[in-house]
Amino acid sequence: MFRNLKSCNRGSQAVKGLLLLLLAAAPLSGMAEQSTRNVILLIGDGMDDHQITIARNYLQGANGRLTMDNLPVRSAVQVLTIDEQQPERPVYVADSANSATAIATGVTTSRGRIATSAKDDRDLQTIVELAAANQLATGIVTTASVTDATPASFLAHVSNRGCQSPDTMIAQGPYAGFFKSCERDIRANGGPGSIAEQIAGGNVNIVLGGGGQYFAKSNQGDTHPLAEAAANGFQIIDSPSALQRPFNQNKVLGLFAPKDLPVRLHSSNQQPAAFLTVAEGETAEPQPVTCVVNPSSTQAPSLKSMTEAALGHLRARSDKGFFLMVESASIDKESHERRPCGSIGEVQQLEEALQASLEFAAKHPGTLILVTADHGQAAQLVPYPSMFEGFPGAHSIGRLAAIETPEGSLLGVNYATNDALIEEHSGTQVPLLMNQQPGNALNGVITQPQVFQLILRHLLL
Amino acid sequence: MFRNLKSCNRGSQAVKGLLLLLLAAAPLSGMAEQSTRNVILLIGDGMDDHQITIARNYLQGANGRLTMDNLPVRSAVQVLTIDEQQPERPVYVADSANSATAIATGVTTSRGRIATSAKDDRDLQTIVELAAANQLATGIVTTASVTDATPASFLAHVSNRGCQSPDTMIAQGPYAGFFKSCERDIRANGGPGSIAEQIAGGNVNIVLGGGGQYFAKSNQGDTHPLAEAAANGFQIIDSPSALQRPFNQNKVLGLFAPKDLPVRLHSSNQQPAAFLTVAEGETAEPQPVTCVVNPSSTQAPSLKSMTEAALGHLRARSDKGFFLMVESASIDKESHERRPCGSIGEVQQLEEALQASLEFAAKHPGTLILVTADHGQAAQLVPYPSMFEGFPGAHSIGRLAAIETPEGSLLGVNYATNDALIEEHSGTQVPLLMNQQPGNALNGVITQPQVFQLILRHLLL
Ligand SMILES: [Zn+2]
Ligand SMILES: [Zn+2]
Repeated sequence: MFRNLKSCNRGSQAVKGLLLLLLAAAPLSGMAEQSTRNVILLIGDGMDDHQITIARNYLQGANGRLTMDNLPVRSAVQVLTIDEQQPERPVYVADSANSATAIATGVTTSRGRIATSAKDDRDLQTIVELAAANQLATGIVTTASVTDATPASFLAHVSNRGCQSPDTMIAQGPYAGFFKSCERDIRANGGPGSIAEQIAGGNVNIVLGGGGQYFAKSNQGDTHPLAEAAANGFQIIDSPSALQRPFNQNKVLGLFAPKDLPVRLHSSNQQPAAFLTVAEGETAEPQPVTCVVNPSSTQAPSLKSMTEAALGHLRARSDKGFFLMVESASIDKESHERRPCGSIGEVQQLEEALQASLEFAAKHPGTLILVTADHGQAAQLVPYPSMFEGFPGAHSIGRLAAIETPEGSLLGVNYATNDALIEEHSGTQVPLLMNQQPGNALNGVITQPQVFQLILRHLLL
Repeated sequence: MFRNLKSCNRGSQAVKGLLLLLLAAAPLSGMAEQSTRNVILLIGDGMDDHQITIARNYLQGANGRLTMDNLPVRSAVQVLTIDEQQPERPVYVADSANSATAIATGVTTSRGRIATSAKDDRDLQTIVELAAANQLATGIVTTASVTDATPASFLAHVSNRGCQSPDTMIAQGPYAGFFKSCERDIRANGGPGSIAEQIAGGNVNIVLGGGGQYFAKSNQGDTHPLAEAAANGFQIIDSPSALQRPFNQNKVLGLFAPKDLPVRLHSSNQQPAAFLTVAEGETAEPQPVTCVVNPSSTQAPSLKSMTEAALGHLRARSDKGFFLMVESASIDKESHERRPCGSIGEVQQLEEALQASLEFAAKHPGTLILVTADHGQAAQLVPYPSMFEGFPGAHSIGRLAAIETPEGSLLGVNYATNDALIEEHSGTQVPLLMNQQPGNALNGVITQPQVFQLILRHLLL
């Protein structure tokens, strides 16, 4: 965390002296010094203060507390992004690729990039690679495709997040044209291949999530990431029940859906019919909804069950400790689609995975748990009815949902960042919550690359 | 606190800041027990994570740090509001009256109320009254009218925030019809009178801000709050230069403008011409603006100079300590009006008042500094240009400003909570930042009434 001191011109020696004194005097967490050191990094994709407050109000009531609310060490993280062409210029809103890359590698990059640097396209060493090189066990768990931007940034190096499978290297689907092409990454061009191919050829101990379709045999040529993973020693699973038994191989690849796993909660009304569009001058009130269980969610494993399986597997893999990243991905995805119940259910999934992590940490005190978000999202908790009810124009400009909460009040959620197919991210700072002080005490706001430093330091890397 | 080092191209200043924070954050247990105990509560009205991030990006750059970013003890506060008619029911978005009341009295109430309870309209004892009753000195500093909702909640008890002066007790101006009438509070009806009358008749040691018009002689009858204040022993001042000299009375009332003090920053273009309204289908791009000094701001004292004057006055008033509330009010007011430069400048004013507070705390280690917001606001930091540039509908639905930052990038700020005259508040949790651990260690998220408890405990009340 103190690497930034290198850039100091004047006064840095004095400051270094002070810091050394402080470190010497600080009561270090003695327990963690002696025991195995683990890190569990829980990322709520898009889980900013609004998402947390909306979920708290719905799941626990306005006076209630979430599990994450009890974490004692708390700060905020500044999300950093730079321009692809002019990397010296900041960009104020991130996507999940560049923000996960910052956490996974400690380097700020441009949107759409997976563990590669802006403009000069260098591969950036990830925390998973560093941990594995130091004989720690490593794991990635997500409710998205395991090839999606957040998990991919810990596992692969490509210039475009769309390059999830051999076929999408050529036709990048929804990301075509948005970001730099990944032509250089194609194996035939001497590159490391798509994200799926890099996972299949890699050494991570456990990867659980969705995204089976990206591991299918390529339509062009013989490439088949799933077969490659099996040949590379991965135990392949696709059934939630397989998570209940110990795995019999050193490496596990669990793919429980073709793409993202189904979300837990839906709105009680058809979605997005619960929303009011006033962009074209309509002024109809939104129909109040409640959140109900999405029937298809029971076909996929919960984030908690994947987390527990990963913790059990990783613990047995190394007595030097492990690094595990757990992502609740669809807080973000549901917010893009203007579905507040979907986001609430995925915060609940993160809560359960955190609970499992806290139980693990209670038995293994060298475990540092971090909860953070990669970037902010569009949902805003707004008054419903309007604070200015009855006055002209006192209605949402965007798409508004009115959720009837279990405590009997109406909770307004507004989506108004644009009028396009999906909402934009926001550029707000995001929470950073921990179960204990990291190696050196956290003092104030840090940046996403400093989260990487903080994890390294706890793992003594 | 080490993040202060980011500014270490100005090394000596960084070291100075570090030392200040070290002193302020020094392990209290012994020291504060023995020394005078003071609380400085800085409220950024509407200063949520978006407002802080927007201000950081503009004032310090994306990689920079605000003074508040260095505060080592950090949490979040859940804002609580209840329904006036059914107080058992939560309401998910606050106004400044009920949220300031929760902090000032420890009791959750309904919107519009000033230190009175929902439905049964009881007067709620404020921290200022409690502190004064225990021989502590007390002070209130604000950039709003001193009769505005936030300061008023520490100084008065009325059922409607609009009841700022004797005349507005009858015609409540912009709040008429919104909230419960304050008929019962009129003196002729046996009540304590308007907010101005209650301040004039009270015992607070220093009140500085705007709002002179509310202390003028009433149009109906002989009531004249300013004359009453003078008769009650207040030294009345109205010139910024009067803040540079020691006051010669035990109580001071400084009113530096008829209503709110002018804000520091404006947009370089006419406002709100800098905004794009697409609510009616226009798709014009916003004209990039920079933030420039508002010429009339030099006629009013800065929040910092008022804070310094108040600290000097309060320190000399009691050796038992003091309670001081300092509000940067127009972060909120400018956001209602969709003026991001205005909000940025008022975060800067809060930053300066915090710096003055940290310097005071470095000399007086028993001083607990809290920085928080009363509620969230409408401004959202969004991508500009859109992340989906070129796709249909990829433009803000609300009113969008594009601010050219000193580091040469464009910062998008979107206002889209409604299409009315002014924007709505939001219901997000808000930051709580402190210079040291309070008496009992803070563990996780707290509620606004718990902020009151935390202050009481530090002051041994
Ligand atoms: Zn997203
Ligand atoms: Zn307001």
